Amino acid sequence: MKIILILGAGLSSSTLIRYLLENSIENKWQVRVVDQDINLAKRKINQHPNGVALSFNALSSEERMPEIEKADIVISMLPARFHVEVALDCIALKTNLITPSYISPEMKNLDAAAKSAGIVIMNEIGVDPGIDHMSAMKIIHEIKKKGGDLHSFKSYCGGLIAPEYDNNPWNYKFTWNPRNVVVAGQGGASCFIDHNEYKYIPYNRLFGRLMRLSIDGYGDFDGYANRDSLSYRKTYGIENIPTIFRGTLRRPGFCQAWNVFIELGMTDDSYKMENSEHLTPRSFLNAFLPYHVNRSVENKLKDFLRDERISLFERFEWLGLFDGTTPLGIENASPAQLLEKILVGKLVLSEEDKDMLVMHHEFEYSFNGQNYQITSSMVNIGENHVYTSMSNTVGLPVAIAAKMIVNGSLILKGVQLPIQPEVYTPILEELAEYNIQFIEKEVQLDCKI
Amino acid sequence: MKIILILGAGLSSSTLIRYLLENSIENKWQVRVVDQDINLAKRKINQHPNGVALSFNALSSEERMPEIEKADIVISMLPARFHVEVALDCIALKTNLITPSYISPEMKNLDAAAKSAGIVIMNEIGVDPGIDHMSAMKIIHEIKKKGGDLHSFKSYCGGLIAPEYDNNPWNYKFTWNPRNVVVAGQGGASCFIDHNEYKYIPYNRLFGRLMRLSIDGYGDFDGYANRDSLSYRKTYGIENIPTIFRGTLRRPGFCQAWNVFIELGMTDDSYKMENSEHLTPRSFLNAFLPYHVNRSVENKLKDFLRDERISLFERFEWLGLFDGTTPLGIENASPAQLLEKILVGKLVLSEEDKDMLVMHHEFEYSFNGQNYQITSSMVNIGENHVYTSMSNTVGLPVAIAAKMIVNGSLILKGVQLPIQPEVYTPILEELAEYNIQFIEKEVQLDCKI
Repeated sequence: MKIILILGAGLSSSTLIRYLLENSIENKWQVRVVDQDINLAKRKINQHPNGVALSFNALSSEERMPEIEKADIVISMLPARFHVEVALDCIALKTNLITPSYISPEMKNLDAAAKSAGIVIMNEIGVDPGIDHMSAMKIIHEIKKKGGDLHSFKSYCGGLIAPEYDNNPWNYKFTWNPRNVVVAGQGGASCFIDHNEYKYIPYNRLFGRLMRLSIDGYGDFDGYANRDSLSYRKTYGIENIPTIFRGTLRRPGFCQAWNVFIELGMTDDSYKMENSEHLTPRSFLNAFLPYHVNRSVENKLKDFLRDERISLFERFEWLGLFDGTTPLGIENASPAQLLEKILVGKLVLSEEDKDMLVMHHEFEYSFNGQNYQITSSMVNIGENHVYTSMSNTVGLPVAIAAKMIVNGSLILKGVQLPIQPEVYTPILEELAEYNIQFIEKEVQLDCKI
Repeated sequence: MKIILILGAGLSSSTLIRYLLENSIENKWQVRVVDQDINLAKRKINQHPNGVALSFNALSSEERMPEIEKADIVISMLPARFHVEVALDCIALKTNLITPSYISPEMKNLDAAAKSAGIVIMNEIGVDPGIDHMSAMKIIHEIKKKGGDLHSFKSYCGGLIAPEYDNNPWNYKFTWNPRNVVVAGQGGASCFIDHNEYKYIPYNRLFGRLMRLSIDGYGDFDGYANRDSLSYRKTYGIENIPTIFRGTLRRPGFCQAWNVFIELGMTDDSYKMENSEHLTPRSFLNAFLPYHVNRSVENKLKDFLRDERISLFERFEWLGLFDGTTPLGIENASPAQLLEKILVGKLVLSEEDKDMLVMHHEFEYSFNGQNYQITSSMVNIGENHVYTSMSNTVGLPVAIAAKMIVNGSLILKGVQLPIQPEVYTPILEELAEYNIQFIEKEVQLDCKI
């Protein structure tokens, strides 16, 4: 039997573990799942005969080494900062490794060592990063193969609430770590290229400069720029492309309203507010509005919104921001922590809800003097609140890659990401069976691109 | 003869050195001035018989120790980060020390050591900090003495161009380090208290939320909030004051226009722009505006300003921001560096110009059931481009304090700042002889405070 070792049995491992167990009998796999919480590991394995639940500190090299030694492949679902340490153990023990996370510079430096150990360390093979790479590279390779000249690549991804369960004025619920949503885009300007012009958007304008797009059957979305669009040029082999933009999708209106939080300073995580445990949503908001002897907090927010954004007001009202009686009750809290507390109370994904993962690429290229546009869109709805779309789209490509490596159908060595046809073709094909499928359309363009 | 040792003969030492030399014969002082650049030290001494120009590395403890040992007092005009090291030498050699800079936590920790060495380390005794402390504490002590209850303290300071030389649409010229002006307010929210409400202003709104004030004979000014107004409560012994605000003064319009730079992201110093050496003012500005196939940079900036701020447009035009032919020519530059280059080319203080230092305090207090307001304003015009108002207002209080310590009329020990009557009374009196004089006015208030 081949042994697959999974480090971490948290939310994002659900689908991964289910897939591997479901395929374990046929493939003769033993699936060993480690978590600090043995009950969590046991629940995920659900008494499957080929599953083994383990509990030890996966962050300790000493404790995990014996398990890595036994395994044919390790899948690290630990927080990204621990992947390099796990990779060092895998190199020492010549065991293959998969992580869904971005390749850090330290990870990149392990390429030669991984190659001489004869193993593959496959990274960035969840949804974003992961499915984005695979679905984009497929089309980029097709355009190149045909002899087309790629002018523009725009790519968007968003974790949202499925339309049927979309029942609040923000058209949003948390389907992933709320903290990451609250602080998204902080820490520097976002950068991309538009018609050969480098463009920089500071944080205070990030959610105010949007790209609108439509996806058949799913309506409109707004994309705000991701921090770094530029590094994808090198990764995708499109160094001289005149336009490249990567964005995150939200439903129309969300970003404009979110930008109000940013402009007011309510997403700041860099300092603690005085007497934060006594702040109510109302006094928290009021701390970012000017004092006025008799103007209400409601009216001061309306002044801030100005006529042009006044339609956003109901979103803030719906969040309970004007509640002046219930203290938020967090000691020594940053604005971001207090805002998160307000939001998670309202934008929660309930047990009946289903989430939705949306990915959309737009390519423009010229060929034989003619300009063309290709769009490629994927919308996936979660099964339920455990096997969410987020869990499925992260877990399935990881699991399929693990299958291909263990069964010997994928032979790559070194530190890799899924940008080669031998990786993405079979994975995209199998994902389609799970309804993670891209709809591609090509049109001829009249306009200059 | 008593020996006064001055470390650093830069711009801000001019008036300090002149004062000490002018008073040196009568008081029997030798004034020893150290600078890396011996010619600079010599020029400042100007062949005065009681002056000695020295050149060594004042940052090296070994090199400065013999000089400190000889001296009765050391005045450190070095960059603030070096003051603690100098203080340690002064403690070891039992020599008094003056710095114009803020007391760092490390400096504060030297209080006991300074006391047991029997020396005073007097800090924050330039203009801001310095004259602000002294002029405010004088009034705070008067109100307390009378039995008044202080409700509100607002304090403003600004280094500006004198009205006669104010001939550009920004109503501003650099009278101090331009870089500090470009990055002013960055690094976190500004915080103050207004009617017992803590208020936080994020950087992107800092220059958009202003306090307007008028000073007789000098017209209107706008104050934007300093980063930290709160720590002054403890320093001034007014811990429970319901309103405290400290701000920096600019002429009306400056701040609104500056906020446009901030909103666009042009003051960011946290990253380098691609191909920065080739950027012209126009392409630099365009990097922060959306791409448009045929809309000019001028029109895109107008779009950004919206109707309500369109009157600011001429300020940007006057700066030459639309010049698309002259590269800024700085390799690997941050937005802040490029903006600074554009600004210093235009907002320069010429040799004929005179600068102006403005300070303004507003106090509101109640006494015997009646509310009162006291304002205290000081406007000082520089003599010329060497003995600027900035140099005079920084240098004179430092010099007067040095005189008082050396002559034995000020007997304080430990790490101090000028908040006690025995310090500020004689210094404010002597500053008035140099036309650095506060005009105080008191009115009875009808309105609730």
